[in-house]
Parts: sequence; structure tokens; C-alpha cells
Amino acid sequence: MQLVSANRVHEGEHRQYSHESNSNQCTMRFALFLPPSLSTRKAKTPVLLWLSGLTCSDENFMQKSGALALAAELGWAILAPDTSPRGEHVPDDPDNAWDFGKGAGFYLNATQAPWSQNYQMYDYLIKDLIALIKAHFNKLDVCAISGHSMGGHGALTIGLKHPDLFKSISAFSPIVNPINVPWGVKAFSNYLGADRCSWLQYDACELLKNVTHHVPILIDQGADDSFLTEQLKPENLVKVALQKDYALRVDMHPGYDHSYYFVSSFINKHLLFHDQHQQT
Amino acid sequence: MQLVSANRVHEGEHRQYSHESNSNQCTMRFALFLPPSLSTRKAKTPVLLWLSGLTCSDENFMQKSGALALAAELGWAILAPDTSPRGEHVPDDPDNAWDFGKGAGFYLNATQAPWSQNYQMYDYLIKDLIALIKAHFNKLDVCAISGHSMGGHGALTIGLKHPDLFKSISAFSPIVNPINVPWGVKAFSNYLGADRCSWLQYDACELLKNVTHHVPILIDQGADDSFLTEQLKPENLVKVALQKDYALRVDMHPGYDHSYYFVSSFINKHLLFHDQHQQT
Repeated sequence: MQLVSANRVHEGEHRQYSHESNSNQCTMRFALFLPPSLSTRKAKTPVLLWLSGLTCSDENFMQKSGALALAAELGWAILAPDTSPRGEHVPDDPDNAWDFGKGAGFYLNATQAPWSQNYQMYDYLIKDLIALIKAHFNKLDVCAISGHSMGGHGALTIGLKHPDLFKSISAFSPIVNPINVPWGVKAFSNYLGADRCSWLQYDACELLKNVTHHVPILIDQGADDSFLTEQLKPENLVKVALQKDYALRVDMHPGYDHSYYFVSSFINKHLLFHDQHQQT
Repeated sequence: MQLVSANRVHEGEHRQYSHESNSNQCTMRFALFLPPSLSTRKAKTPVLLWLSGLTCSDENFMQKSGALALAAELGWAILAPDTSPRGEHVPDDPDNAWDFGKGAGFYLNATQAPWSQNYQMYDYLIKDLIALIKAHFNKLDVCAISGHSMGGHGALTIGLKHPDLFKSISAFSPIVNPINVPWGVKAFSNYLGADRCSWLQYDACELLKNVTHHVPILIDQGADDSFLTEQLKPENLVKVALQKDYALRVDMHPGYDHSYYFVSSFINKHLLFHDQHQQT
């Protein structure tokens, strides 16, 4: 694990690290915010795993969310990985599309050539990154998950699969039903192949139908988000949650769009949500 | 004036506009944050004019400073112009240096060819932009100025020259004495020519020696800023302020660097500083 950069911020520290990922077969970079209380706190410091959206890297959330002030105050660390494998040897979309390939790993394990060798983002997070954090920071506890858009899809699916790890799940503007929207169909067709049965394990609506543990979920969604009706469809998740009597809260916000201006407006609400569910 | 983008944020609105600048002879873009209270408040809404640093545009502060939450709460607007003229016809540094030419206008009126035709950032701000805001937003009052690095230089020099406009001045990591540091000497030599007498009007230390109005100034500076000793030299401004018994406050912060992580850590302090001096 190599330290790439370090900045003091809100009396805590923002760091970037690079490391070799076994799962992705490439060098990965991630960002880690450490709150000022880390060194003095006796209990473990909770960590929010943040998954970013299409085109993003480990940098967008740390620079644009405005989350670090309250995270510092509450004593939360934040872990922000990249959104896909990286490197010249890693295959990319032949047309350089922004919604597939590099910057668009969709937090799944690809099974189709040429993607399967590097696009193993699900394993990267669960097997490589969380283990790396445990090994290097014994006072950190990755216990909550959140994300934006494609990262909201990642937070919901990974959070629902791992109640052992995550006590609370939240998302901004998530892709909740990728098997039924263009972004998801494009990515899953390429990464996972034509057999739609293999897609179900990465679809939040499908996963929610079968969960037994009820980890609380908070979703915020801009009502003026240009991707709302075609790509995001939060109502599909609400429908399943109602059938299951699942503790899902979805708040719609008139006037807000899909940008980080929206995320920054409500990120403190999400930090407080995770903090409350950590303590209970 | 053309609306380029609009995003709801913290119940207010972030907008980008483009317009033709007489002073710079090019199309300029700026960003404007409007707080939610703008429409209901009877009194004028105060505006903080924010000047960004080298390589920045109108976007950096709005996306990275984390200022909009408190600005929304206090009822402040923020106006963030670009840092130089733009366009294919605008001359740039022949070596594409990041500290001169486009992205590095130094908030002055160039007198030397080929820069003098477009690099009129001082006039752009005072004659074009503030007038444009007045003409289009009669409920806004540009009354405070701040900036970062080169923009801190801009805030100090323009603020000191215009006690008629600005009731308070603040800066993060400012270039306080450009005539005596490499960034300033390079820029001023090119934009203003070899006669150093013409440089003095754009040097905060020189201006402070001769001011009669004492507009309060707040400066925050990272003690681990890699540019501190060679380019920034806040002690030079402190020396003049002590001689003049001027109300200058300079706070040094161990561990902090020159980045927006530093700005975001202390921006709320600056907003409260300006808000207090607005009300007195």
C-alpha cells in the first residue's frame, strides 16, 4: 500500500493510497478520510464506504460532497474507492463511452471476455479493499455503505448482500433496478452476458425481494433529475419494499438534479442516519 | 447575459452565466450562488465576491469549498468569476505554463503586448461584472471580497482600493507581496513591463502602506503550505499592518497545505467574518 497524497482537512486527514488488487489484476487507488478523533478514541472508528457514480474516481466525493466537516465532528472515517479497474492494460469501451468500461465498473464481477480479467469490482471491494483496511488500520470498522447513482446501485446491492458488514445503507439517486434500465442493460449484457438470470444478483429490487435481514435504507432523490424516469426508477424499489414491509425511506426533493450539488445538500442527513444506526 | 447552467443546492441555486466582456474583449463565464432567502428578503442580499487561484475557473470554489451550506443559512450570495480572459483568440503563455496566461490573469490590467488587449481582469471585475450584477439583480449587493492564493492577492488589492464597495476583505493563502516573489515577478514583468513603479498598484503590501480607510482583513494560512516561504510571505503584510496599526488578522494553521481541503476547513469562519462586518 503506497501513500499517494495527504492533506489535512477539518483537523483530520485526507489520504490517497494505491495498491495492487488481486481481484482486478491492476493497481487501484482509493481515498480515505480519517477524523481527528481517530488517535484518541478507544472504541473503533466507524467507516462509511462511499461508492461513486459513472465517470467518477476516488476524488469526486472527497472534493465535492462537503461531507468532511460533519464526518470530522461525528468521528467518522470515509473510504472512497475508484469506480472501475484502471491502467493501460485494462480493456475499455471501444467507443470510449462514459457509461461503460473504465469509470463504470458497476460494482460486479464480470464473467465475459475481455472484461472478466479486470472488472471484478465486487470482489475488489469485499475481498481486497475491506481486508486491506482491516490489515492496516485496526481501529477502523467499515460498517456503513452509501453511494451516488451507479454507486447507489453498488451501495444497495452490496449492502443488502452483507448485513454482516453493514448496519445501515443509504444512496443518492441510485440505479435501483439495473436489469430494467438502459445503463444497466448495457453494462450487464457486456459484463455478464446474455443470460439474464446471472444479472439478478446485482439488482437491488431482485435482492430486496429475498432478503431476510432488514438493514435500514435511506434514499434521497432529486425530483428534477434528468435520469429519474429512464434510468433510476426508485418507485420500483419502493414497490418491493412495501410488499416486504421493509424499512426503506425514500425522500424526493423538488428542483434538485443528479449533480454533486444535490449530494452536498443532503450528505449531512446521510451521515447522521448512519451515525444513529451505528449506535443502536 | 446567457444562463449556462442551473442547479438547486441547499435550497438555493447555483448558476453559471456567460457574457461578453468589454474590458477583456472576450466571452467570460461566472458562477453565482443565490441563497434561498433572496426572493423573500426585503433588504438587499449581501454578495461575497470570490476570486480563485492559479489554474482555476468559476467552478472550483462552488464545487470544492463547502461554502454553500452556511451561505444559504446566513442568506449570502456568492459571485465567482473566472481567473483570466478565455477563448481561442486570447493569447496564452507560449509554454503553456500554469502560472501565467490563461487561468492566471492576476486581477490586473495588462499594459504590454500581446496581453493588453484581453488581460484586463481588474477592469473586468470592477467595470463589467459588478455592473452586470447590479443591472440584472437589483436585490444583490456586492459588499465583501475574498479569494485564494492568486485570488487572495486579487481580494486584498481590489478590496484595499475599493472601500466604497467592500466592507470586509478576507483571503486564504494569499500572494501578499507579488512584486517580491517569483509568481508575481513573472506575471507582472509580462503583463506590466519592466518598469517596477507600475507594479506597485497591484501589490497588497504597497497598497496597505498608503491606505486611509481601514477595512477589516482576515487571512488564514496553512503552515505546511509548500508555497509559503517562496511565494506567499504573509509576514511581509503583517509587518506593514503593524506599522500602520491596521486591523489585520492572520491565523496560521499547522499541518494544512495550499489545497481546497484547507479552504473548505475554514471557509465558514470567513463567511461569519464577512457577515459580522456587514451588520456593523
